Amino acid sequence: MPTTKTPACKVRFEPSGLKTEAPRGTSILEAARLAGVYLTSICGGDGYCGKCKVVVDDGDVEAPPNVLLTQQETRAGTVLACQARIMSDLVVTVPKSHLLEAGQILIDSDAHRFSELPTADLGKAAFPYEPLVQKVYLEMAAPSETDQLADHERLYMAIRRRLDVPLMQTGYRIIQGLPAILTQSNYKVTAVVGQRGGTAEVVDLEPGDRSRCNYAVAVDVGTTTVVAHLLDLATGATLGAEATYNSQMHFGEDYIRRIIYAEQNDAFEELQRCIVGDVNELIQALAVRHNVELACITAVICSGNTAMIHFLLNLDPRRIRRAPYIPTAAWIPPLRAAEAGIRINKRGLLYTLPAVGAYVGSDIVAGVLATRLYEARDLSLLIDIGTNGEVVLGSRQWMVCASSSAGPAFEGSGVKHGMRAAPGAIERLSLGPGGEFRYQTIGGEPPRGLCGSGLLDTLATLLEAGIIDRTGRFTGDRNGRVREGPDGPELVLVPARDSHPAIAITQADIANLVRSKAGVHAAIQVLMESTNTRPEQLAALYVAGGFGNYLDVPKAILVGMLPDIPVERIRFVGNTSIAGAKMAILSRLALEKAEEIAARMTYFDLMNHPHYMDEFIRSNFLPHTDLARFPSAQKRLGRRAAT
Amino acid sequence: MPTTKTPACKVRFEPSGLKTEAPRGTSILEAARLAGVYLTSICGGDGYCGKCKVVVDDGDVEAPPNVLLTQQETRAGTVLACQARIMSDLVVTVPKSHLLEAGQILIDSDAHRFSELPTADLGKAAFPYEPLVQKVYLEMAAPSETDQLADHERLYMAIRRRLDVPLMQTGYRIIQGLPAILTQSNYKVTAVVGQRGGTAEVVDLEPGDRSRCNYAVAVDVGTTTVVAHLLDLATGATLGAEATYNSQMHFGEDYIRRIIYAEQNDAFEELQRCIVGDVNELIQALAVRHNVELACITAVICSGNTAMIHFLLNLDPRRIRRAPYIPTAAWIPPLRAAEAGIRINKRGLLYTLPAVGAYVGSDIVAGVLATRLYEARDLSLLIDIGTNGEVVLGSRQWMVCASSSAGPAFEGSGVKHGMRAAPGAIERLSLGPGGEFRYQTIGGEPPRGLCGSGLLDTLATLLEAGIIDRTGRFTGDRNGRVREGPDGPELVLVPARDSHPAIAITQADIANLVRSKAGVHAAIQVLMESTNTRPEQLAALYVAGGFGNYLDVPKAILVGMLPDIPVERIRFVGNTSIAGAKMAILSRLALEKAEEIAARMTYFDLMNHPHYMDEFIRSNFLPHTDLARFPSAQKRLGRRAAT
Repeated sequence: MPTTKTPACKVRFEPSGLKTEAPRGTSILEAARLAGVYLTSICGGDGYCGKCKVVVDDGDVEAPPNVLLTQQETRAGTVLACQARIMSDLVVTVPKSHLLEAGQILIDSDAHRFSELPTADLGKAAFPYEPLVQKVYLEMAAPSETDQLADHERLYMAIRRRLDVPLMQTGYRIIQGLPAILTQSNYKVTAVVGQRGGTAEVVDLEPGDRSRCNYAVAVDVGTTTVVAHLLDLATGATLGAEATYNSQMHFGEDYIRRIIYAEQNDAFEELQRCIVGDVNELIQALAVRHNVELACITAVICSGNTAMIHFLLNLDPRRIRRAPYIPTAAWIPPLRAAEAGIRINKRGLLYTLPAVGAYVGSDIVAGVLATRLYEARDLSLLIDIGTNGEVVLGSRQWMVCASSSAGPAFEGSGVKHGMRAAPGAIERLSLGPGGEFRYQTIGGEPPRGLCGSGLLDTLATLLEAGIIDRTGRFTGDRNGRVREGPDGPELVLVPARDSHPAIAITQADIANLVRSKAGVHAAIQVLMESTNTRPEQLAALYVAGGFGNYLDVPKAILVGMLPDIPVERIRFVGNTSIAGAKMAILSRLALEKAEEIAARMTYFDLMNHPHYMDEFIRSNFLPHTDLARFPSAQKRLGRRAAT
Repeated sequence: MPTTKTPACKVRFEPSGLKTEAPRGTSILEAARLAGVYLTSICGGDGYCGKCKVVVDDGDVEAPPNVLLTQQETRAGTVLACQARIMSDLVVTVPKSHLLEAGQILIDSDAHRFSELPTADLGKAAFPYEPLVQKVYLEMAAPSETDQLADHERLYMAIRRRLDVPLMQTGYRIIQGLPAILTQSNYKVTAVVGQRGGTAEVVDLEPGDRSRCNYAVAVDVGTTTVVAHLLDLATGATLGAEATYNSQMHFGEDYIRRIIYAEQNDAFEELQRCIVGDVNELIQALAVRHNVELACITAVICSGNTAMIHFLLNLDPRRIRRAPYIPTAAWIPPLRAAEAGIRINKRGLLYTLPAVGAYVGSDIVAGVLATRLYEARDLSLLIDIGTNGEVVLGSRQWMVCASSSAGPAFEGSGVKHGMRAAPGAIERLSLGPGGEFRYQTIGGEPPRGLCGSGLLDTLATLLEAGIIDRTGRFTGDRNGRVREGPDGPELVLVPARDSHPAIAITQADIANLVRSKAGVHAAIQVLMESTNTRPEQLAALYVAGGFGNYLDVPKAILVGMLPDIPVERIRFVGNTSIAGAKMAILSRLALEKAEEIAARMTYFDLMNHPHYMDEFIRSNFLPHTDLARFPSAQKRLGRRAAT
């Protein structure tokens, strides 16, 4: 049977100028992926989030009509990239608002913009310095007639004189190569010794003294962003950090969508290639910038939510989204990095911090390690608000944890003008003396939308100003900014200027945000109630992750996201996922502690918890049905009511 | 440049009828190797041992004249296979005397033909039954909403409930395949759990209950012979045994020659292929005979001298033969068998018993384990007389060991009519009442030569009869059988009959044999003197290996090979190399004990020992210069002198 080859169409994306060729009939979203152009896509290509709008400047596409497109947009050539099929060569403009740009990815653990509280002690001390992969320079005596020890045992004895490693392993190829390297180097070699599940492995051997050339990369594999730090294992110093967006975002903004996409398209390997590619790019960038050879990077350590770690290692993630919600592995033994496609030293090791379960990943365990919550005498609460909202409550006595169904509303998903923390995002919003909205954008650029902290500020501001009531419904606006929009009632926060459309928040947006904060709060509440913990017992509340560092605490309390405890007990701890990963790569005992922590944490499955739904419903108010739980919010709202 | 292809010649070997094609110019020895025809070759193809004589029946060869060939032989078409180059198609007859035949390879540890002493307790008890690879059938609870343990941890917990394994590892591919196998089998699987250097590895997983299908092969990798036993790991029973000649013999009879050959011809991989092929053939034969799938063989354990283990694993053996005589590895970690080319379960493990050093291999450590010399209250001596002669002296207090430069004279090498223990070999020889020689051949076949025990008998008989003196020199023979042969004085033991030439022993043969026994005895002597051990302190003398089981003890004492201790203290313990290997595969603690034994044994390098040469020279008499050390021999020789 003769086959007809589908003709390839050339597609150019503006303003980047990036080009690709794609077979006729391919979606523009797919072509963007091929060209390396990042497009926002929340629904994973199902055509109902409306985030992937692009403008076709030239060429033919087949695009079905879509309610998410206005007539005006359709006339201007706007299509949904996921729905539009390429029929000829194209020129496509990607609107600025939909590009993923390098923004405020939280790459470090010591940033605390809105907090005066000390976080400097985070993850310091506590563990002796003993990296998971060490390089030891060995000057061995050459064999003689009075010292006929075999090469292999000679090496072991020399290593044992330097390191406390009762059990040792060596790969077959390394043993085979021993005589050559030992005799050529006159028995002066550097042994690369890695921890591997209770035993030490002679990962590699190098002639001469290479002990100073030992680096590792710690990676926080987030659903949205991937952050990597380069560490000098010879000194323990952090040399630099890099971050990128997780290129799996093409397949859906949250990991559940990605699992569905992979399952429907048998694309698990493709998803692995995406994230492994991101990690490799970060490693490569760090290596180049800091003039480090890849061969000198002997270890990578990863933390992240359980689904992301599954994608990274191509472990089957399908049952993470189906009852009874089972990961393939919560604890993953050290692997050779090359086995997963990660490019460092070709025999270098890949470590993964342990997870608690399907919905409480190694990033949270890393957070518990970094905050030292696990060893505190008094109770603390750790909240990680990213794409999901995980909560840990406990002390050295016990620890409980849960994952809320928060959803990514505070990351801009499901919110009309929501966007990620990128230049032009409104990150602060308040009401001026004349009732006008004042805002501050990231990078001081013209406003393009609202990121998480901006959305929280909006919610609190509207509540405090009485523009919305405690159910989140618009009650009226003295300045008449509430109007009937295409998606129902909306409040204009920034009027239209020049080519920029107005930025508004809709009634539906507010409902989404309230649901999202309610999820986090209900999770906290269930853990506290189940353990009979009263708010005043909390010695510390650690806020970690995604937008934690940019959060206005009193406002977060006001809307009922955080429990109403004294502000001085609340600490912004930044990216504790990477902080914990770095602790573990620098200390074998820290990794062992992480394993102990994961084993000690009791997971509460909120979906099956008898009180969660009630608590969630009660939390669907601002701040809560029970105002007595939020005395400071009550005071503030009372003050407003009094004015 | 045009290349001219060397024409291929067809070569047929009789009487086997095996055929091959070989390029013109190839040696007949090489062609025999290609055809799978075993030819004796002691010198490794250098043309000076004269063992590889064959008769060219048809076709042209280029064969240089050689002093080792008589005119008569040359006329009959006899050539040295290693020297004769194939110039056309050939028919070659391999004389019966030079074929390697399945003979008395010592495949079991319970054979003791000349001893009434109990050896039944050899290697029994002592260690708890805990095979290095176990199969455990696990019926796990399927995950539920109240039991959300990940697959990996669920498996570990289930294994730990059955086995005491504090540290566990699992290969990446096994973890990746977990969800499929667990869900498909409804969480009822058989885990194959192998010991790997202090940790346990989940080697493989099988759906359902396969716990009864677990087999291992123990292999004694000898220089001359390779012996394999098939064990049922579910019961500990030995199912059968197979033996074959080490096909590396084409490259030289002793391992030093093979190392030289490999070094000169860069043939290390070829030598590995030979021995790995032999091991695979044995495994295959055992599997077929006992109806066991290769996939059910989960482990192989090997013991052998250090050079053979190096060849097997293609570890560099070159410095074994050069001062200061260093192995690449004396202790070798468990490998995946497939990594070395050994065909069992594709993830099955290959264990190697530990060696002491270059010249005291894991076969000797296995012998110490099997005889339990290491835990005896009183001193014992273990002598393994194979191609080399290793000696161990000690008790639970201390152990010393040495390897003599015995050489393979008692295996027929360097002895005119010497041959291996094969049908037609004279294994017993004595003097009849009329002064005539009486002999017994293996298999009752017409005599073709003398094997080790026959050679020892000859030496003792000639000494006792006064035909040789205590220096080994012919003094005369009443029957006039001493004659001047082509190689100097010789004594005809079996006159020529029909087509069979006479079987004689030459003055040079006797000198070789005396040197060989002197090597063993001097080694014993040095160990005993160095440790201040008197013969009467020896509670037991274990004779193991090659021809140990067929040795006439009083005669071995008479010629001064064994020390003169009461005969009842001497035990034939057979192939202790395989007995020890079997103990180790059946008990993790036995393997650990072997490692402890290897570490505890102090090696005496005889070549650098100040007394060895003196002792060797003194031992070059029959039995020794100092007759007082051999009271029973003195008595026997005195009796002869009196008659």
